[in-house]
Amino acid sequence: MTTLPTGGLALSQLDEQLLQPGVKGLALTAPLRQHMIGVQRWNVLAGDTGFPVALLKTSSLRHNLDWMRAFCARHGALLAPHGKTTMSPQLFDAQLANGAWGITLATASQVQVAARFGVRRVLLANEVVAASDIRVLLQLLRDNPAFELFALADSLDGVQRLADAVTAAGLRRPLPLLVELGIAGKRAGCRTSDEAMAVARAIAAAPGLQLAGIEGYEGLLVTTDRAADLERVDAFLQAMVDLVRQCDAEGLFAGPQILLSAGGSSYFDRVAQCFAGVTGTSRPVLSIVRSGCYLTNDHGHYFELTRELDERAGGGVGLVPALEVWSTVLSRPEPTLAILGMGKRDASHDLGLPRALLRHRIGAAGPVALDDGWHIEKMNDQHAYLRLPENEVDELRVGDLVGCGISHPCTTFDKWSVLLLVEDDYRVTGAVNTFF
Amino acid sequence: MTTLPTGGLALSQLDEQLLQPGVKGLALTAPLRQHMIGVQRWNVLAGDTGFPVALLKTSSLRHNLDWMRAFCARHGALLAPHGKTTMSPQLFDAQLANGAWGITLATASQVQVAARFGVRRVLLANEVVAASDIRVLLQLLRDNPAFELFALADSLDGVQRLADAVTAAGLRRPLPLLVELGIAGKRAGCRTSDEAMAVARAIAAAPGLQLAGIEGYEGLLVTTDRAADLERVDAFLQAMVDLVRQCDAEGLFAGPQILLSAGGSSYFDRVAQCFAGVTGTSRPVLSIVRSGCYLTNDHGHYFELTRELDERAGGGVGLVPALEVWSTVLSRPEPTLAILGMGKRDASHDLGLPRALLRHRIGAAGPVALDDGWHIEKMNDQHAYLRLPENEVDELRVGDLVGCGISHPCTTFDKWSVLLLVEDDYRVTGAVNTFF
Repeated sequence: MTTLPTGGLALSQLDEQLLQPGVKGLALTAPLRQHMIGVQRWNVLAGDTGFPVALLKTSSLRHNLDWMRAFCARHGALLAPHGKTTMSPQLFDAQLANGAWGITLATASQVQVAARFGVRRVLLANEVVAASDIRVLLQLLRDNPAFELFALADSLDGVQRLADAVTAAGLRRPLPLLVELGIAGKRAGCRTSDEAMAVARAIAAAPGLQLAGIEGYEGLLVTTDRAADLERVDAFLQAMVDLVRQCDAEGLFAGPQILLSAGGSSYFDRVAQCFAGVTGTSRPVLSIVRSGCYLTNDHGHYFELTRELDERAGGGVGLVPALEVWSTVLSRPEPTLAILGMGKRDASHDLGLPRALLRHRIGAAGPVALDDGWHIEKMNDQHAYLRLPENEVDELRVGDLVGCGISHPCTTFDKWSVLLLVEDDYRVTGAVNTFF
Repeated sequence: MTTLPTGGLALSQLDEQLLQPGVKGLALTAPLRQHMIGVQRWNVLAGDTGFPVALLKTSSLRHNLDWMRAFCARHGALLAPHGKTTMSPQLFDAQLANGAWGITLATASQVQVAARFGVRRVLLANEVVAASDIRVLLQLLRDNPAFELFALADSLDGVQRLADAVTAAGLRRPLPLLVELGIAGKRAGCRTSDEAMAVARAIAAAPGLQLAGIEGYEGLLVTTDRAADLERVDAFLQAMVDLVRQCDAEGLFAGPQILLSAGGSSYFDRVAQCFAGVTGTSRPVLSIVRSGCYLTNDHGHYFELTRELDERAGGGVGLVPALEVWSTVLSRPEPTLAILGMGKRDASHDLGLPRALLRHRIGAAGPVALDDGWHIEKMNDQHAYLRLPENEVDELRVGDLVGCGISHPCTTFDKWSVLLLVEDDYRVTGAVNTFF
């Protein structure tokens, strides 16, 4: 990475790795050491890369990093960005270097990847249940005294499984757990305070376990009625705070602080505001937000949600999209139809199809912005169907490039093992890797 | 691979590679050479693997390989299975060892992966347009005299780009191209015979290019009215045959044979039947079907379509599903709801959600089949929502395993870098890799 910080032995090994011909987006004719990408003088607009290609705009990443640091400072919140979004060691490192408290992850194998690349504090925002998953996590804790892991529990069965495993493994330090509070009809998490308290008491009483905090995920409360959503979000967050007080009153927490964590990428402003006021507890409360999509944002689902968040905060320049997928016009089979060499294998399609942003003819002065009359109407595995406005059918030829924004970074990152870092003029300055 | 053939230097390098902790589905606590997976005595039902984990049942792969070889022999068709489905060198190798004529692919980078792992004949069933893509393909042809590549064209612009590039590269052998015939309102391909003939004549006249055949993709004609679909499929295939005859009458074909290729995974029976009757041409016609999903089949979209295909052929044991994704019950937050540790990152969701097939409690005698009352109703990135029948809510606990079939192999394979090979009793015998 050229303008974002990097560090650690394993990260430098990524820079040194020999990329083989066949890596998507690179069009290599011979193996290339990854750190040499930045000195190839590639420019996407000159057609130097392979197509399709996934791009991260460095200036937008930098803006979003700065924005989030300022946000957290303003609200007294800590950031444990959800690493499952990118699963990119270089982007984990950039976020940690920017002041993130830790990295949030969803599975044991994701934790292993993060630990391998130097992440030292993980919030595993998920229940850990499978014996094999517990085994790999306990091994990480045993082998790396500096490695910190916090995980979730929402059932007495789950607590028992963890307690038994920790005891059997002879782990010398307690495993800190957060009780997950859930929402009726939604995902995991205790459905009532009574259930949550029973789990909390079981953790506090179990040998080898430690009650470290309370966790919830309000991000599932997205409907078409945002006012009602926000009411439910606030009520849920308040229930989490009440649970903290109840556990504290019973003396269930152990360790130097209480972790209180919520916050997907839609409502982390409400989370930070609600949790900022929690004082008077036996030990300090750490308010931890977990947005994963803030870093790259997008041109769809999360762009809209973070625009709303920005408006709630009174405006200003909010988060900006950093991730684009560029492809070639392979065919112009009908006047208003272009077939692009980009499909479900290359861009997310679960929260909206990609948005056509720019067209570019190689050799032209620069790309041309596309209005809403241009839209992707369908994708197959390897192709997208771009519909053109009837009065602009002469503007796009076979071989032209089309730059698309995406909706939902998580399901775009997982389609690329290498994403290219570009300047605003689409000069390629480096690359990041993903491990899915 | 234990019971499927393997070969080639690069494939043995895959066997020798050191897999790192963090590879999804393996739960490694230390690096492991891939070929050692088969001697670990892992059994999925004993919880020895990580979860989620993607499994290929070796006996079902073997059945499907045999089934397809017999099908092709019966119809005088050649098989160039679409490699984009699996992008797995070991599965390419198994199919070639089973008599496949070549491997079909969709992009230049996929061709590079296949060539790297020993594939020697590729049908690139797509237009090749980007200069960087053309460059890497011509380099493969120049560096490997034994490597054969056939690609598509559907426009005069496209033909010109290829002709210019081949001339500039000084390639000593002509680049063989197939004209793509398309379908109104669908993907790439010439919309009329007149357009297709113009492209065919341009190829025949261009220096460095050679007209090798006619290609089409009838697999886009899937609606809810199958009788009408089949009529359109047959008419489309007949138009392809007519195009062969017209090109042949004009003496446009070069090379020792004429390639005539269609066939996704839904209607390859019609393709084989229609193309079997093409005789009387100046040189032999090779009828090439391209199904990619026959190898693993699925428990959804393609299972239904190949069942219909089997009925059209008069019954018998058809293709069987070979691909399953197993995960753990992470949470039982409500009586009829279980949250599984498997999501959009692990299983396809574009042509139907996964189907819950089996539940298993570790230590129990064996897995229990689930009826249609059990169904996955939703997936997030890392979680699935399994709905239970009201009279069986006591049958599933936190920590139990659930085995799911999937719908659409292409968008499941691309979520795994390693898939495990299992016997019918879920003993793990080996692994295959994917390169997306």
